[in-house]
Amino acid sequence: MNVELVTIGDEILLGKVINTHIAYIGSKLARIGIPLSRQTSVRDERGALKEVLAESLERSDLVITTGGLGPTTDDTTKTVLAELFETKLARDEAIVRDLRERHGESLSAIVLTQADVPASAFVIANSVGTAPGFIFEKGDKRAVALPGPPNELKPMFEDVVLPKLEAERKGDLFVERMFRTIGVRESDIEERVGKMLQGLPGLSYGLIAHPYQVDLRLYCTSPSQQEANEILRPGEEVVEAEFGKSIFTRDDRSLEEVVGEMLKVNKKTIALAESCTGGLIAKRLTDISGSSAYFEGAFVSYSNRWKENLLGVSGQTLIKHGAVSEQTAREMAENVREKAHTDIGLSVTGIAGPTGGTKEKPVGLVYMALADGRTTVARKFNFRGDREWIRYRASQAAINMIRDYLLKVE
Amino acid sequence: MNVELVTIGDEILLGKVINTHIAYIGSKLARIGIPLSRQTSVRDERGALKEVLAESLERSDLVITTGGLGPTTDDTTKTVLAELFETKLARDEAIVRDLRERHGESLSAIVLTQADVPASAFVIANSVGTAPGFIFEKGDKRAVALPGPPNELKPMFEDVVLPKLEAERKGDLFVERMFRTIGVRESDIEERVGKMLQGLPGLSYGLIAHPYQVDLRLYCTSPSQQEANEILRPGEEVVEAEFGKSIFTRDDRSLEEVVGEMLKVNKKTIALAESCTGGLIAKRLTDISGSSAYFEGAFVSYSNRWKENLLGVSGQTLIKHGAVSEQTAREMAENVREKAHTDIGLSVTGIAGPTGGTKEKPVGLVYMALADGRTTVARKFNFRGDREWIRYRASQAAINMIRDYLLKVE
Repeated sequence: MNVELVTIGDEILLGKVINTHIAYIGSKLARIGIPLSRQTSVRDERGALKEVLAESLERSDLVITTGGLGPTTDDTTKTVLAELFETKLARDEAIVRDLRERHGESLSAIVLTQADVPASAFVIANSVGTAPGFIFEKGDKRAVALPGPPNELKPMFEDVVLPKLEAERKGDLFVERMFRTIGVRESDIEERVGKMLQGLPGLSYGLIAHPYQVDLRLYCTSPSQQEANEILRPGEEVVEAEFGKSIFTRDDRSLEEVVGEMLKVNKKTIALAESCTGGLIAKRLTDISGSSAYFEGAFVSYSNRWKENLLGVSGQTLIKHGAVSEQTAREMAENVREKAHTDIGLSVTGIAGPTGGTKEKPVGLVYMALADGRTTVARKFNFRGDREWIRYRASQAAINMIRDYLLKVE
Repeated sequence: MNVELVTIGDEILLGKVINTHIAYIGSKLARIGIPLSRQTSVRDERGALKEVLAESLERSDLVITTGGLGPTTDDTTKTVLAELFETKLARDEAIVRDLRERHGESLSAIVLTQADVPASAFVIANSVGTAPGFIFEKGDKRAVALPGPPNELKPMFEDVVLPKLEAERKGDLFVERMFRTIGVRESDIEERVGKMLQGLPGLSYGLIAHPYQVDLRLYCTSPSQQEANEILRPGEEVVEAEFGKSIFTRDDRSLEEVVGEMLKVNKKTIALAESCTGGLIAKRLTDISGSSAYFEGAFVSYSNRWKENLLGVSGQTLIKHGAVSEQTAREMAENVREKAHTDIGLSVTGIAGPTGGTKEKPVGLVYMALADGRTTVARKFNFRGDREWIRYRASQAAINMIRDYLLKVE
């Protein structure tokens, strides 16, 4: 089954919002073995929209659209699809009643147009907003029209569209294995396993580079899950043998989720002392619900005064070695651990840039340390990139230091 | 000038990454008056890519591509574009020298393929990674190929591509005015100014809802900047008169950028005590380069122990009113201000969910306080949404408390 996504709206192409529909719908479809083959964004302009939808329907079995279902004049998805599927709009009295219930006396003629639905289409109720969605069908072509706001789209997609597609899915399965690695370069992975993976029949692979993280995916299409497993197994063995402990997860979890789970299982608590990352590591660890089981808190000691007066880094150390130094990182980690009475103290200090670098201490220089009361390990990094990337890379490397530590404890 | 964007990579269509290229490139192009007319995502598959690129080139004057420039076998953008522009790959000795410098002895044959460049293309140097970008040109058709990683793409796009396009731009101008508001609802804006704006000739408007923030854009196309200004002026007057101080900026700056600038101008320093936001506010304030001028640091006091022992919230308060209470928020703000010796202390404590809510204190309940040594103001919110949205909304409202405070000081 060939599926395309068409995301509709000026706001997408003018860069006013980040298009999260592609990742959301793409990942949900991939998980049931129907990868998206193409995605197009088009403006709120009737002619352009009709052209895009006609082309997509020509190429594929199913077109999913997002946006352009509202009651305002720039919303034309419903009428354009009705034309392409050769059906007419007719007022749906059930929707009229529902709108009257929600809006009461204030129901306007504009909002009421949402009750005009394509006669031959299946209507998907919208439990959050007022614009219903639709499933159009004609011969072997189908289109699913969903509203743009993610909180309206998601329940409609998950409760109606996805189960329907999963039940009807026929033909080959798309099966995938994910290996998320940390601290290994993309080109290293290619060199170490590329040739071997290319030699395996029926198997494809792909690499996705994130800051300080590379995801390696093995995938194949196959008539049965069992056959797919047989195709993928030799590839999995190659990857496991070569990268072993650099693989932090074999699913879609984030590093902070995996490390949070490890802290919980090992019954270890942690406190942070962050300088250049400015709270990013604490933010990432507390993105995870339930993190209060292992996360005590953090000092975001951005200034030297804070490092000295509140975190207790010695004035001598700051003067002699500077705030960005292994010695300061060590004291930060040891002190925060002691002050917070946790098992682990973790610190990061560095120069995120773009200013503040010197010849001896350039932008991107970051020290981090992990203290457990017996020993303190420190590491030095030279990260490349802009402020955002340096900070994010540093947060990755720091969270990975917790992982390395817990792997040795286990 | 008709410009299309083609974003290349399995990771996009399989939902492994969120496609931020559309918003980044779309907004940069809109700002110089060249809105994107269409965007397509395509998989790392030679045949599909060639089809998409040939179609896009047919329809438009310029096609910008992202991704597929790396040295691995699934990277085919360079060769496909070379075919479409009828040129051959040739080894570029300058790039070979650069790669040798960066990689030294470890330079592999795979990485070395990045020195093979299309003979007739203009090469855009990559200051961050190893894959160069290209500008292809033939007759009145052009393509710009950029690497996928945002930190590599951005400098290449901003330093080379954007200035070139701006210098060459011809035809009608696309001119826009942005008003970013905080704490006003989308439907309120529509009701209060929608009709008036619709009545203004030549002017269009659009609303973009973010968590606790709505952006209102006025725009038009016009042959001259002066004429555009005349079209937009009456709209600007309507918006300014109606929303005044709810508008925190008239450009694309973020709330943290605007408030950071206000702190700097007012020569005020700040320290934070964050509970449920877990470092997010500190992270956002320190996203801004130069924030050390006003940001001292933060206590991320996630546990009650931390609130009591390190931040000095009284045990009595925690027992009597609970960690999520106005009293705790007040003590957190006052104490962090005193400990850090700053002008302002700001605190946030709440229930981000999904668990931990009760009937009296439901998920989404958030207290925040701002102390300046003379008075302490507290506010209570009930935010809706999931954990991520509640945390983000809380960070918006908290940063806006600083803004409100400084507006009164000025």
